[in-house]
Amino acid sequence: MVASSPPPPVVPSVSFPAGATPTSILAASKAEEWVAIPADDLMVIDLAGNRRVVIQLAPDFAPVHVRNIKALARTGYWQGAAVYRVHDNYVAQWGNNETDKPLPAGVVKQPPAEYERPLSGLDVVPLGSPDPYAAMVGYAKGWPVAVDSRAATATLAHCYASVGVGRDLSPDTGMGGELYAVIGHGPRALDRVIANVGRVVSGIEHLSSLPRGTEALGFYKERASDVPIVNVQMASTIAEDERPRFEYLDEKSQSFAAWLHVKKNRRDDFYIRPAGGVDLCNATTPVRASA
Amino acid sequence: MVASSPPPPVVPSVSFPAGATPTSILAASKAEEWVAIPADDLMVIDLAGNRRVVIQLAPDFAPVHVRNIKALARTGYWQGAAVYRVHDNYVAQWGNNETDKPLPAGVVKQPPAEYERPLSGLDVVPLGSPDPYAAMVGYAKGWPVAVDSRAATATLAHCYASVGVGRDLSPDTGMGGELYAVIGHGPRALDRVIANVGRVVSGIEHLSSLPRGTEALGFYKERASDVPIVNVQMASTIAEDERPRFEYLDEKSQSFAAWLHVKKNRRDDFYIRPAGGVDLCNATTPVRASA
Repeated sequence: MVASSPPPPVVPSVSFPAGATPTSILAASKAEEWVAIPADDLMVIDLAGNRRVVIQLAPDFAPVHVRNIKALARTGYWQGAAVYRVHDNYVAQWGNNETDKPLPAGVVKQPPAEYERPLSGLDVVPLGSPDPYAAMVGYAKGWPVAVDSRAATATLAHCYASVGVGRDLSPDTGMGGELYAVIGHGPRALDRVIANVGRVVSGIEHLSSLPRGTEALGFYKERASDVPIVNVQMASTIAEDERPRFEYLDEKSQSFAAWLHVKKNRRDDFYIRPAGGVDLCNATTPVRASA
Repeated sequence: MVASSPPPPVVPSVSFPAGATPTSILAASKAEEWVAIPADDLMVIDLAGNRRVVIQLAPDFAPVHVRNIKALARTGYWQGAAVYRVHDNYVAQWGNNETDKPLPAGVVKQPPAEYERPLSGLDVVPLGSPDPYAAMVGYAKGWPVAVDSRAATATLAHCYASVGVGRDLSPDTGMGGELYAVIGHGPRALDRVIANVGRVVSGIEHLSSLPRGTEALGFYKERASDVPIVNVQMASTIAEDERPRFEYLDEKSQSFAAWLHVKKNRRDDFYIRPAGGVDLCNATTPVRASA
């Protein structure tokens, strides 16, 4: 008979002061714990009214869709496009609204269903809390992921500010011309159903605060309600001294471990009782602007 | 040696057509499966610009706070009040912004910390999916709840559109004059830390689409940005033929069981692969307007 004892509590191997908050831990992190996001993965969308939205694309998870999107951005496909759907607690969606605009050369009209990728090549740091949708969730390459150990696949999780590809009914996979950003509770039911291609790293409030559409599914009733897209460009095509730059906190860093521990166990002058766990979408990888 | 076999799948005892969606199941539900919400639990807030927000209060979970809030509503405490904080992916908050307005008679200045209630008296229908914050979550009296079996307590869960009581640092509990509604991913870390007193049942989009505040924590910088509250009243004080009415789907009904099953296992022309589970905040009790 083997005596069973409770497992020891999981604590990061890094020390941090009592009363530390997620913010204070990020402020005390070291520069080398942050990973620069390549300029060629950053898509810059300027909405009418000087509202800039910056999206980090995820070629590691949906390479064909992301190549399409970069080609669309570079060739001006979204000139004249607009945000035409804002569905409360769900998504804001933009594009050419299913007009038959000719596709630029190099764009794959029907990409494969990039709804998961091989687990191989990803070194997943576990969240360490139960998840309603997957046996294991965690972080890899700066992204929140859901892991299917049996199938040996990983899926980019749909959280607030995630960016995905609008599509018609299956087997359509969407070519990338119609995109949405999540503006509500993470719709994780979409995780293995639709191509998740990135996240808004700056300016999500310009999408989340738009008036909601009154038609079914949040579509705007009148075209006059559409929010025009003035310009779309990849950051890599902007002059070096003008381009936006962002970095994410390496999930393998000591500061990330401390940050995640405190996200689960907040105890300070406001959080009087630690939760003991955290939802993946309430603890997405920290991203910040860099110089 | 005992042979182990996988447990049988959990299915509701109700039949529903293949390809059923949450919407189609609600449409096919019976009138007697819905429970009318008492008019005296409905607080009606009219924002400037004909924007009406209706909140259902939860006296079963935070009775003293709710009594306070009803007294504040009935005595015009919020005349001249406004929405003064909109924090993206978190909360919209309103009230008199910590001015020293005298409290009406009967209002308890420092209510008890109503952050959970006895499990006794609640017949919780389990969600049946893992939760990052609690050993068990489910539904009781029309509300999403998190259960602490050891302490025999239940907590109203913080989901999108939940309404809670702003407070200062602990041990302050907030008297109910400053309220917030959740406009982002369910901040469940607040569950046992702050008084959750209800939910927006209509008009959440009037709060979630407001411009975000640019000061720390989403406070508006200029008072000119505040969104005035024109009127606050309990539905029970509105003429019977003019008052708004709402009802929720009984969690013990057959249609609720079918609805929850399909929320976890969507399989239709769009959802090509069932998730097998659902997050509590992605499956909050259905509420609808009634005649």
